[in-house]
Amino acid sequence: MVKLLFGIHCHQPVGNFDFVIEEVYKHSYLPFIEVLKRFPCVRVSLHYSGCLLEWLENRHPEFLGMLRELANRGQVEILGGGFYEPILAAISEEDRRAQIRMLSRFVAERCGQSPRGMWLAERVWEPTVVKAMVRSGIEYVLVDDFHFICAGFSPEQLYGYYLTEEEGEPLAVFPIDSRLRYLTPFQAVEKTMEYLSAVHRRGNDLCAVIVDDGEKYGSWPDTYDWVYNQGWLEKFFAALKDERSWIETVTFSEVLEQVPPLGRVYLPSASYFEMGQWSLPAEKAFALGRLQQELEQEGKLDRFRPFLRGGIWRNFFVKYPESNLMHKKMLDLSRRIKQAPASPAREAAQKAVYRAQSNDAYWHGVFGGIYLPHLRQAVYRHLLEAEEWLDRLEQETSEGKALPSCRLVDIDNDGRLEVLVNTSRCTFGLAAHRGGQVFEWGLKTLRVNLLNTLSRRFEHYHRHTAVSAPPPQASEVTTIHHREKSGDEELKQELCYDWYERRAFIDHFFSERTALAEFASCAYEERGDFVLGEYTVSKWGYREEGIEIVLTRLGKVDGKPVLLQKAVWCREDGLEVGYRLVNQGDSVLHTAFGVEINLAMPASGGEGGRYFIQGRLPEDASFLSQAAEERVEQVRLADEIMGGQINLTWDRPAHFWRFPLQTVSQSESGWEKTYQSSVLLPWWELDLQPGEEWEARLTLRSV
Amino acid sequence: MVKLLFGIHCHQPVGNFDFVIEEVYKHSYLPFIEVLKRFPCVRVSLHYSGCLLEWLENRHPEFLGMLRELANRGQVEILGGGFYEPILAAISEEDRRAQIRMLSRFVAERCGQSPRGMWLAERVWEPTVVKAMVRSGIEYVLVDDFHFICAGFSPEQLYGYYLTEEEGEPLAVFPIDSRLRYLTPFQAVEKTMEYLSAVHRRGNDLCAVIVDDGEKYGSWPDTYDWVYNQGWLEKFFAALKDERSWIETVTFSEVLEQVPPLGRVYLPSASYFEMGQWSLPAEKAFALGRLQQELEQEGKLDRFRPFLRGGIWRNFFVKYPESNLMHKKMLDLSRRIKQAPASPAREAAQKAVYRAQSNDAYWHGVFGGIYLPHLRQAVYRHLLEAEEWLDRLEQETSEGKALPSCRLVDIDNDGRLEVLVNTSRCTFGLAAHRGGQVFEWGLKTLRVNLLNTLSRRFEHYHRHTAVSAPPPQASEVTTIHHREKSGDEELKQELCYDWYERRAFIDHFFSERTALAEFASCAYEERGDFVLGEYTVSKWGYREEGIEIVLTRLGKVDGKPVLLQKAVWCREDGLEVGYRLVNQGDSVLHTAFGVEINLAMPASGGEGGRYFIQGRLPEDASFLSQAAEERVEQVRLADEIMGGQINLTWDRPAHFWRFPLQTVSQSESGWEKTYQSSVLLPWWELDLQPGEEWEARLTLRSV
Repeated sequence: MVKLLFGIHCHQPVGNFDFVIEEVYKHSYLPFIEVLKRFPCVRVSLHYSGCLLEWLENRHPEFLGMLRELANRGQVEILGGGFYEPILAAISEEDRRAQIRMLSRFVAERCGQSPRGMWLAERVWEPTVVKAMVRSGIEYVLVDDFHFICAGFSPEQLYGYYLTEEEGEPLAVFPIDSRLRYLTPFQAVEKTMEYLSAVHRRGNDLCAVIVDDGEKYGSWPDTYDWVYNQGWLEKFFAALKDERSWIETVTFSEVLEQVPPLGRVYLPSASYFEMGQWSLPAEKAFALGRLQQELEQEGKLDRFRPFLRGGIWRNFFVKYPESNLMHKKMLDLSRRIKQAPASPAREAAQKAVYRAQSNDAYWHGVFGGIYLPHLRQAVYRHLLEAEEWLDRLEQETSEGKALPSCRLVDIDNDGRLEVLVNTSRCTFGLAAHRGGQVFEWGLKTLRVNLLNTLSRRFEHYHRHTAVSAPPPQASEVTTIHHREKSGDEELKQELCYDWYERRAFIDHFFSERTALAEFASCAYEERGDFVLGEYTVSKWGYREEGIEIVLTRLGKVDGKPVLLQKAVWCREDGLEVGYRLVNQGDSVLHTAFGVEINLAMPASGGEGGRYFIQGRLPEDASFLSQAAEERVEQVRLADEIMGGQINLTWDRPAHFWRFPLQTVSQSESGWEKTYQSSVLLPWWELDLQPGEEWEARLTLRSV
Repeated sequence: MVKLLFGIHCHQPVGNFDFVIEEVYKHSYLPFIEVLKRFPCVRVSLHYSGCLLEWLENRHPEFLGMLRELANRGQVEILGGGFYEPILAAISEEDRRAQIRMLSRFVAERCGQSPRGMWLAERVWEPTVVKAMVRSGIEYVLVDDFHFICAGFSPEQLYGYYLTEEEGEPLAVFPIDSRLRYLTPFQAVEKTMEYLSAVHRRGNDLCAVIVDDGEKYGSWPDTYDWVYNQGWLEKFFAALKDERSWIETVTFSEVLEQVPPLGRVYLPSASYFEMGQWSLPAEKAFALGRLQQELEQEGKLDRFRPFLRGGIWRNFFVKYPESNLMHKKMLDLSRRIKQAPASPAREAAQKAVYRAQSNDAYWHGVFGGIYLPHLRQAVYRHLLEAEEWLDRLEQETSEGKALPSCRLVDIDNDGRLEVLVNTSRCTFGLAAHRGGQVFEWGLKTLRVNLLNTLSRRFEHYHRHTAVSAPPPQASEVTTIHHREKSGDEELKQELCYDWYERRAFIDHFFSERTALAEFASCAYEERGDFVLGEYTVSKWGYREEGIEIVLTRLGKVDGKPVLLQKAVWCREDGLEVGYRLVNQGDSVLHTAFGVEINLAMPASGGEGGRYFIQGRLPEDASFLSQAAEERVEQVRLADEIMGGQINLTWDRPAHFWRFPLQTVSQSESGWEKTYQSSVLLPWWELDLQPGEEWEARLTLRSV
């Protein structure tokens, strides 16, 4: 007998659009279960992330009823995991346990089954996660066969499970068979059956494990027709029923009880092979992709595969500073919340942090991930919610510690102190050593971080590589890994890369002959060294209903000394920044000086719901999709989705540039252009005599 | 200025021979410091493992005085680490912290400096170790540049340090420059200076980090003459002094204070590249070695290096079950000790476990490691010491829980329960499911595990591969990694591999025409399925001053059913095993039946101090080095080093085979043949009619 362990893993990111989830529900989650119900003899393992279960409970409570029924009749085993599908390795030990227990409790209560095993989000294995699993009552976990290959195993050793341990506490680990993962459901049912038959001939009581994304069954491109209209799933289940003489569909728990482990294993930090490539710095990812192609063409890939490795998931925090900022803010909140005594407010704060741990917004592979603003917004929404709860908790526990408050702390783990300001309605983050930029402006009431931007970066797929995937055979569908993604030629023309992080109060010096298009595509000459330069905090303290931080830098413009002082006043409704510029050289300083502010507003990039009010002019809905130059003294951005307006004003006549910052990234259906922020740049032509000063004041307010 | 961070790491395994350490002291530890003292302007970082410091304090207290003096004058920074140089990833979180704190305390007390950074044993990095370091007051750690290469960095990004974090708690990580590691001290001083000069030209305030084994400076083959007689070290320090205008020798702590980190980093589970190869299963290690050679010959190695990876250190527990047994016994003791209330006895027990955590005996690379019996003996010596302390602790705390005791526990993490018996003088371990073998017989009084054997296994270097290292240039010495190790041709002839673990009460069926030489080289036909077969524990319980476990297996000999029952009686002084064999087939069973017992006795393999008494015959010192066949009813092995004698008797006339089990492994100076155990095999010719029974009784006692 072959023991077939067949299952699916279903998940929707926290913050995903409701209509998207509804589509997936109709095209895969529901029909899968409906087909399954008709084959009571086919036993299957199911994993739904907690955030998806919450959505299902809310929108389709009958679905949970079906799961319960299937569980009760012993047809399905329901897997646990981290509730909001966090990357376990990236959250604290305490949060790991809490997330796992939350999902176990939910499944036990709603489906009447206490999970014994779990799905590991993105199969991101680091040895750190074992203890949390074991101590949360988990007996087994699923990973890829690639994890085992990395540990020195051969594919033929993987028809079963192994035991690992941490501090002597054991955990069973099942490798998922990648060959089956590429067969189901993309190839004809016969091919899967042939494969299983080969396993059967190999020995008795061998296990074949295939658990993969449930969305592959109906929601990935072209799969609905293939899986349901053409009946792949029904045929597969029918074949399993017909071949009961030599195929037994079993659950993981049964295997644990019936079959001893094949041996011991210690897995390295690993995920699936592709994740290793994605997590590398883009140039290295490109190099790895090219080597892989070369090896494939030379027929050497199989020999190299066991030793060929990319990076690890947590490198996304290095690759995308935007991911790092969300992550470190999350860790900071999580830690501070734990210091408060237990209370319903603390629980609410904690839960908001758990939601913010949902992995999707923190990385990028074949799906948009961090490139999708609505996913990043969801993270900040929950972080700001947690921040609000924490305000209350801290005010309750420590008398006198009132808002506004100001902390100097290395929030992003770059070895330097950032300034964090917290008022009752806003949060602010300033990095003096990184161009004196303001990198966070959170509106607690609206739960939006307006500086939740994303810079344009080189991605390994931006550079053309020959496509090596064989053309799909007729009557079969291709997996998204094999889909040709050569990229839209038009988008390719637009590719340009930022050399700094696009946040707020970035100080530019450039020639007044610079064209907006040049500036927007980073094809101009920056003549100062202030954008990435180090400012010092020369003063900071409380000031009427806010906190003032004075940043100073003696830098250079065209090689000549210039003193720049920014007095940043963090107030309840936003920021006021006083600029003071002194020509410290002994010749005239002739330059354009501009202050760049990026605003990432929920609706601004999307269709509908966005307005622009320029000065006192009427709304101009097209504002944000085009670059433009004008002379105004204030701009206002309103956003229906966010539910608020942002006003930017300055106190002396200026040129004004504006353009949308758009990234080009890949997704499961091809290349995508995505709005990330509206770049606003008031700028001035200066002619300063030696020793001469110049001043201006900008205000950025939520109204 | 180039900031040169130069240092050495010095360590001697727990259990190493005193005269060996003394030699190393004379040839490297002492002369290094003597030269250093003459160059007060050259600043250096030093790491000595705690076990080495204990030895130094004992034998050369003046050496610690010198260290203190150097530390006081600010010339050296002393690094911390795990006291007994454990692989941090392989011990419990609590033990990690305790080991680190122990060394920090020792260094602070004896040398007047509190370590801020640490040496990571064998640079075995797993993300699990970060928290323990940070929470033990460690601010920085050293790893290889290879760790960073694995994380996607390029060598030119590594002239400084990076920050990592675990749960938001930061740790600085310095990459050691492998190019410098191969230059110093093996190449002329000028080459190192040229390299440093190239770093100098690259930019200002870049760091060059070279910390490597202190034994390279005098104790590795040929290095004493090169480093001291020919004056490499003196020349190097003189060059550093002369070039003070552009080279600054600094300590790690100074760099932490003066230079910001280069960025953030997350390292995967990794060590140096070679360790990745060694830790792989031997066939995979061979395959990786061959690929590497191919790439080198094709000039592609540099392009592949960032993506080419072996296994991880903890795979040694999979590769060598003997290592696993030590490790899991260690974890079990460590855990149980922690359950006892604090007391001096608990502290002593804990310290014995820490000693047993010293890494050297648990693995094998270019040094003998696990192949060296005296290192494994040291591990068991300390484990048995801990076991004795634990006996006392448990007897004090839980009344009525007296010895002998018997536990059924999965001690080796194979998913099956082993039987562990503890008497006041002995420990026993039985694996019913693994041939009903006895795998541990510890004598607490002598602190020896007599079954501390090692099987003969294929190692990747046993198979010939072309040597690719270039011949060394005149007036330079080769590193041990580049030494030609083609292996002794004679030893190569002797290579043979065991297909089972060589411990005690292994039940063999073979033809009575089998020759001893055939048996000894595993070139005979095993006709039964009992050696690795599964026995069931059919009965177990207390019996006069001991514990009896009855193991039963209905197996096959020549395809015919045979029932074998072993009644194992664990007593204060050893084991008594009653064998009962029943021919359950319907034809005559004609076979030889033998019981194999391996005894690993400290002195037996070495020169001197070993004796053999056969029956009542006088001593025969050559016994253990030769294979022989005779007819006796008892054998006695005496061992001066162990300080005891072991008697094996049987109650019916038998043939008796004996031979030394010797492994062939590589060490820093070439291939070595090492005595691992004395194989003792009394055997009988049987002719059993259908249904006929046969019985025999063996006793194995310490006398």
